[in-house]
Amino acid sequence: MVKLESRILDIDYQGVVLNIEDARKIGVLDGDRVQIVRGDKGLFVQAFVVTTKTILPPGIFGIYHKTNERLNSKDGDTFEVRHADRPGSINFIKKKMDNEKLNAEEMKAIVTDIVDDILSPGEISAFIAASYINGLDMDEIEYLTRSMVQTGESLDFSSHPIADKHSIGGVPGNKITLLIVPIIAAGGLKIPKTSSRAITGAGGTADLMEALAPVEFSSTEVARMTEKAGGVIVWGGATNIAPADDKIILYEYPFKIDARGQMLASVMAKKIAVGADLVVIDIPVGNEAKVTTPEEGRKLAREFIELGDRFGIRVECALTYGESPVGHCIGVNLEVREALSVLEGSDFPHSLIQKSLTLAGIVFEMAGKAQSGKGFEMAEEILKSGKALSKMKEIIAVQGGNSDVKSGDLKTGEFSFEVNAPEDGYVIDMKNKALISIARMAGAPHDKGAGIYLHKKRGQRIEKGEPIYTIYAEREWRLEKAIQEARQLMPVLVEGMLIDRVPSDYWRPPMKQ
Amino acid sequence: MVKLESRILDIDYQGVVLNIEDARKIGVLDGDRVQIVRGDKGLFVQAFVVTTKTILPPGIFGIYHKTNERLNSKDGDTFEVRHADRPGSINFIKKKMDNEKLNAEEMKAIVTDIVDDILSPGEISAFIAASYINGLDMDEIEYLTRSMVQTGESLDFSSHPIADKHSIGGVPGNKITLLIVPIIAAGGLKIPKTSSRAITGAGGTADLMEALAPVEFSSTEVARMTEKAGGVIVWGGATNIAPADDKIILYEYPFKIDARGQMLASVMAKKIAVGADLVVIDIPVGNEAKVTTPEEGRKLAREFIELGDRFGIRVECALTYGESPVGHCIGVNLEVREALSVLEGSDFPHSLIQKSLTLAGIVFEMAGKAQSGKGFEMAEEILKSGKALSKMKEIIAVQGGNSDVKSGDLKTGEFSFEVNAPEDGYVIDMKNKALISIARMAGAPHDKGAGIYLHKKRGQRIEKGEPIYTIYAEREWRLEKAIQEARQLMPVLVEGMLIDRVPSDYWRPPMKQ
Repeated sequence: MVKLESRILDIDYQGVVLNIEDARKIGVLDGDRVQIVRGDKGLFVQAFVVTTKTILPPGIFGIYHKTNERLNSKDGDTFEVRHADRPGSINFIKKKMDNEKLNAEEMKAIVTDIVDDILSPGEISAFIAASYINGLDMDEIEYLTRSMVQTGESLDFSSHPIADKHSIGGVPGNKITLLIVPIIAAGGLKIPKTSSRAITGAGGTADLMEALAPVEFSSTEVARMTEKAGGVIVWGGATNIAPADDKIILYEYPFKIDARGQMLASVMAKKIAVGADLVVIDIPVGNEAKVTTPEEGRKLAREFIELGDRFGIRVECALTYGESPVGHCIGVNLEVREALSVLEGSDFPHSLIQKSLTLAGIVFEMAGKAQSGKGFEMAEEILKSGKALSKMKEIIAVQGGNSDVKSGDLKTGEFSFEVNAPEDGYVIDMKNKALISIARMAGAPHDKGAGIYLHKKRGQRIEKGEPIYTIYAEREWRLEKAIQEARQLMPVLVEGMLIDRVPSDYWRPPMKQ
Repeated sequence: MVKLESRILDIDYQGVVLNIEDARKIGVLDGDRVQIVRGDKGLFVQAFVVTTKTILPPGIFGIYHKTNERLNSKDGDTFEVRHADRPGSINFIKKKMDNEKLNAEEMKAIVTDIVDDILSPGEISAFIAASYINGLDMDEIEYLTRSMVQTGESLDFSSHPIADKHSIGGVPGNKITLLIVPIIAAGGLKIPKTSSRAITGAGGTADLMEALAPVEFSSTEVARMTEKAGGVIVWGGATNIAPADDKIILYEYPFKIDARGQMLASVMAKKIAVGADLVVIDIPVGNEAKVTTPEEGRKLAREFIELGDRFGIRVECALTYGESPVGHCIGVNLEVREALSVLEGSDFPHSLIQKSLTLAGIVFEMAGKAQSGKGFEMAEEILKSGKALSKMKEIIAVQGGNSDVKSGDLKTGEFSFEVNAPEDGYVIDMKNKALISIARMAGAPHDKGAGIYLHKKRGQRIEKGEPIYTIYAEREWRLEKAIQEARQLMPVLVEGMLIDRVPSDYWRPPMKQ
């Protein structure tokens, strides 16, 4: 153990930098863990070590930004720094690698150490890989879900029921949240919607909403704004709700995996933490969606329902058409423009409106706001009457955005390229993954003006030379990369909406009403 | 793409630090990859990004030490920095996660990207976990082995055969290399032994040898010294021989796994790279060794032999007694003292001498230096005559150590604690893992004077109050931690040595003679 003076390193990384001499005294090597102790504040923080010979002299240690979020140190503070033991959670990860079941305590230990940055990237990644390969059973998924809830904040509301929706993703252009949330809130239900940013997609709902208003709020603010406006659309990553999930997703990202157990836990943990009583889950089904067959979709739906049941939450799942993009747009400003135009009264695109009203209608029926079979009509009335638009403006305002925004204010990038039909014919195929990849190459979601506009969808007649789709970019070299990527045919189809609806077998009155 | 000026960060880490504004211009976030281009030198180096708001201003980027080993930049150089694509090797790792077989090109891509620091810790760890869980078949192991050889340096010798030995580890106190290498070299065979440092053990052979001489040499120096002295004992990590292996081991380390496929590839890649024609492999078998049954040991032996055959190397494996430590000492100076005393003529400990002569004898028989069944005698003669001691001094000298060293010069730590028998009786059990853990707590292998001396071994009579073992440490708090760890009984046994010997079915004359 040695006493060292701190130097803050404003680099968005976790860990501490030790002079090699201090590291030797403590008995640690690069990659080992130390415990940083501040007795007067009762602080014990673990961190990974990197060593230096010259950047910092002996007696001074550097603290990276993410580690300092826990220590709240400033330059010149004094800490005891000592060798930290190997965390026990590593043994539980090893257990999962050896295909054994984890119990509640073991899962909790892993999740806690992920949240507290006690596990290294390599260790977390091994847990993800082991869970993906060996799978998690429903008990383990329950433990994982509960641990994710417990290691984060929860929202508390003055009245219930609280509604929520989730799309498991994998289909581009799925901007339905921008319609569903204002419709549900306008229908008198509270819906504190936390969304994600794009990971592998061309724009997450949080990325879309950010074109209209700030999306980064604390949990307390999310609850306050929801009480006020009835609904919000915020970025979950800023709330400290189920923070383990963001860290887990980081390590799934490179492999584009979305392991079933982690996905179930991640979705339900967030719903539990926001206090939801009833949840509708959108499961797009399609060759290139995350779920490729209706059978697989029904199985996943039953798992969501069972997991919800274990936590007293009523879940319904809607298997939706996921073969091709929802609506005609992919990319932040393009999608937001399309959603706003529907709120403003446009009856185009039909597929987007259809899907949004169906899902909102399910929520109204679950909450008893509409009779069975009448939810769609209720949602439609709210949309057509302009109540959904007013509610959306209210939501934008409560989040600090400009509520005077019009769909026409959302601009595409200045560089564009039209892909035209090479001959006459019907549009016969559409590749979601290719569309996403092209939109990302064009700069989405970082460049808000980047994306794709689809002039035609599958089944439509197109003449030689007519535009099939247009790529937009904010930067010329991005457009060139996207055009390169687009060296493959990408036609489009007319979407029938709901493939199936799986009702909950476990219906009971909302618990917290 | 932007042009940035470099600032070297002497922190033993890989990656670059970008001001957040430059990161936005390039279009990367924390954790993304950039390509650093120096057109005039034809350099293209990939690195991971961390961002800062204050440490570096826009226009300047920081280069961590390990990344700068590739760039060889100094402060103030100008580079183009641009977004780098996701490496294709990630798809092959995903393939392994999905339990598909990898072909030669795919394995090569993964290993190359590990060596070139193009894969992140999380990505490498997922590869390790997937290979551990799903396993590698013999073809994949061959591809992995070949890729490990090709991504590193190889030794070139003026004459053959070249001999080598390897212990797969897991048994404490296994200092036999310090005896075998000088015996084999004194017998007229060249043996360029590259060894490892302790990872989970209390002292690797490289740690032991370092108490006598420097162990860090380039591949060229290893070859030169071997030509001169007949043998060397160096740290493999410094040679750039099969460098992928060191990086893979890093990610196995936390989980204490030693995945079969990776172990086979790692061992054989090093033997191939040093140009070995014949190799003896020591497979300790015991409840707490890596291999727990003779059947498992024979299976592993056959795999080593088959893998060797695929590369034209003759392999024999010796299943040895791994239930308890080899000799009476664990820890750097204690073990080196014990080995030197045997070279100096001591006939104690019998078990250590027995095992070393057996393995050296196998090598002599494989090389045709001794008739079948006469290898042990030849090895014994070399040891008894003092030729092995002279050869060891020659090896110490050629590596730059003090060849006047005597066993008595190796000192134990100044703090010690004797564990005494609580009552009369026979020593009946011995836990390797507990012994290693205690030795590590005491400071081994970092503190060379730390370790354990075993006064008794299993089957020996001990009287109440007699010492069973003594713990040594260089620092008092380390001793206290070790004593805490030692709150469990730890008796000892008399070792019969070789359990079985598995000869090669694939014998043919050495290829490079």
